[in-house]
Amino acid sequence: MLALVFDGKATLRTDYPKPTPQRGEALVAVRVAGVCSTDLEVLKGYMGFRGVMGHEFVGEVVEGPGKWRGKRVVAEINCPCGQCDMCRSGLSNHCRNRTVVGISGRDGAFAEMLAVPVGTLHEVPPQVSDDQAVFVEPLAAAYQVVRQVRFQRSDDVVVLGDGRLGQLVARVLRPLLRKVVMVGKHPAKLETAEKQGIETVTLDRYVARASADVVIEATGRPAGLELAMRAVRPRGTIILKSTAASAEPINLSPVVVNEVTMIGSRCGPFGDALRALAGGGVDIFGLISRRFPLTRATEALEAAERPENMKVLIDVR
Amino acid sequence: MLALVFDGKATLRTDYPKPTPQRGEALVAVRVAGVCSTDLEVLKGYMGFRGVMGHEFVGEVVEGPGKWRGKRVVAEINCPCGQCDMCRSGLSNHCRNRTVVGISGRDGAFAEMLAVPVGTLHEVPPQVSDDQAVFVEPLAAAYQVVRQVRFQRSDDVVVLGDGRLGQLVARVLRPLLRKVVMVGKHPAKLETAEKQGIETVTLDRYVARASADVVIEATGRPAGLELAMRAVRPRGTIILKSTAASAEPINLSPVVVNEVTMIGSRCGPFGDALRALAGGGVDIFGLISRRFPLTRATEALEAAERPENMKVLIDVR
Repeated sequence: MLALVFDGKATLRTDYPKPTPQRGEALVAVRVAGVCSTDLEVLKGYMGFRGVMGHEFVGEVVEGPGKWRGKRVVAEINCPCGQCDMCRSGLSNHCRNRTVVGISGRDGAFAEMLAVPVGTLHEVPPQVSDDQAVFVEPLAAAYQVVRQVRFQRSDDVVVLGDGRLGQLVARVLRPLLRKVVMVGKHPAKLETAEKQGIETVTLDRYVARASADVVIEATGRPAGLELAMRAVRPRGTIILKSTAASAEPINLSPVVVNEVTMIGSRCGPFGDALRALAGGGVDIFGLISRRFPLTRATEALEAAERPENMKVLIDVR
Repeated sequence: MLALVFDGKATLRTDYPKPTPQRGEALVAVRVAGVCSTDLEVLKGYMGFRGVMGHEFVGEVVEGPGKWRGKRVVAEINCPCGQCDMCRSGLSNHCRNRTVVGISGRDGAFAEMLAVPVGTLHEVPPQVSDDQAVFVEPLAAAYQVVRQVRFQRSDDVVVLGDGRLGQLVARVLRPLLRKVVMVGKHPAKLETAEKQGIETVTLDRYVARASADVVIEATGRPAGLELAMRAVRPRGTIILKSTAASAEPINLSPVVVNEVTMIGSRCGPFGDALRALAGGGVDIFGLISRRFPLTRATEALEAAERPENMKVLIDVR
């Protein structure tokens, strides 16, 4: 089958073997997939991954238990063992033995088909389009912020970063707060956010005053975390949304002096994301920048690298 | 008066002017003072401080409001303005305009006398000795950990560091938990902890298994934070107790991947510390390594730098 494979570099292969579902797995024919910053990290060697890239997708079950066959689905990316201490304590996203679709130990979604555990599947309701459904995984990651911090309506909340993830986090937070401020570099992206009722400030005009109750670091850059430490108030909270930003060394002494709480935040609740898309609580208007057929998947990766682009989609069928 | 003054280097001066208490301040004659790692940071330029060093002390009020005169006291080190947003929201330890005794903008306690705001004073009950009372400030900092994390008795808690602060944190936690494990480098210091019912492991034998619910980083070294990230379980908590440790750049991506909560922790509740010392809930046995008269205060600083020493005291009268 056709698949975008990373083996040190990303290569489109036409002869990649069709996956054979293992016990407890379903075979899913991919309809649309999305390119995430983590895919771009994989290109740089993240997790030492080798295999079919991609973890954001919507597809149709073509093999698997009867109740799932023919269903349009999205799938959680963490595939847990169900046995370890983390799984037993309800933290299966942190399973000690997990594979992660297109990121660690398991082929991903930039392909005609992929196999995923049945337990990771979520049916997509008919009112959610394929283009919306492909946002379920990153939108769930945005909802994770709401699971980790108890927001007050009057909280002073700043989202650093106007990219894919920052946009989704700000859209999730908008209805919960009196106002949400997004700080970013790209006027066009900030304009997209403004249309959603999000206040925006360009980075060069933003003055950090150690006043924000909560800062969400979604820039993907170390400078973002430094800015977050200057923006957050004493005893405030910084949510770290990106591994890329945190991979660069940083001086944390302001965190100690100001008794800041920093919370790492990764994957989130698919149910919340699906409900928000189905009910209209979050819309994805303006977030899709480009789309490519799977045959041009390498171009999709290149497009996703460009700062002017937000979500880049890959149409598989 | 006699005072140890930092002006780029620490110098014992005999001619330092006796402090003149300002409105709302009391003049305190120092009895005993303690050397803290922060004092050693001041020697390296921390906060750009210039003036009389020292912030851990017990003394006697010699000038001030009638109700305080003659009282044996300790004093909180943060001197707040009472007006700013932090003060008004009850976070006066984070006052925007604060001075900090012997650390920032205010002369400290390695002197015959110092002036402090009356509002920072706490009377020392008679059953608490001077040598115990000088531990109130660092013990309060240890109690801050209990204010910031809701511990369960069965929690797997690891204290990294067998120095002054690690010892106090472990002693505060010991009665609250089934067990406390301290990881350190110094057999004699670990032995001191064992006598308090604390389990200990030497660093070279400690195997981090991403299993601890809470890790308290009290090593004062960047390697300690790296170890903390390996020791804590996914969704676990790291308490950062030392600015020194966090001043060195570090890669935080494990915090994001494992959704760890990191909490900066600085000063704490004097009342809790005084009650623990008065009631016998925490004892300071084995924590005083050396003592020097104020005339030999520079030697006290040198002694505090030596890894084999825990608390070094300065006897002022």
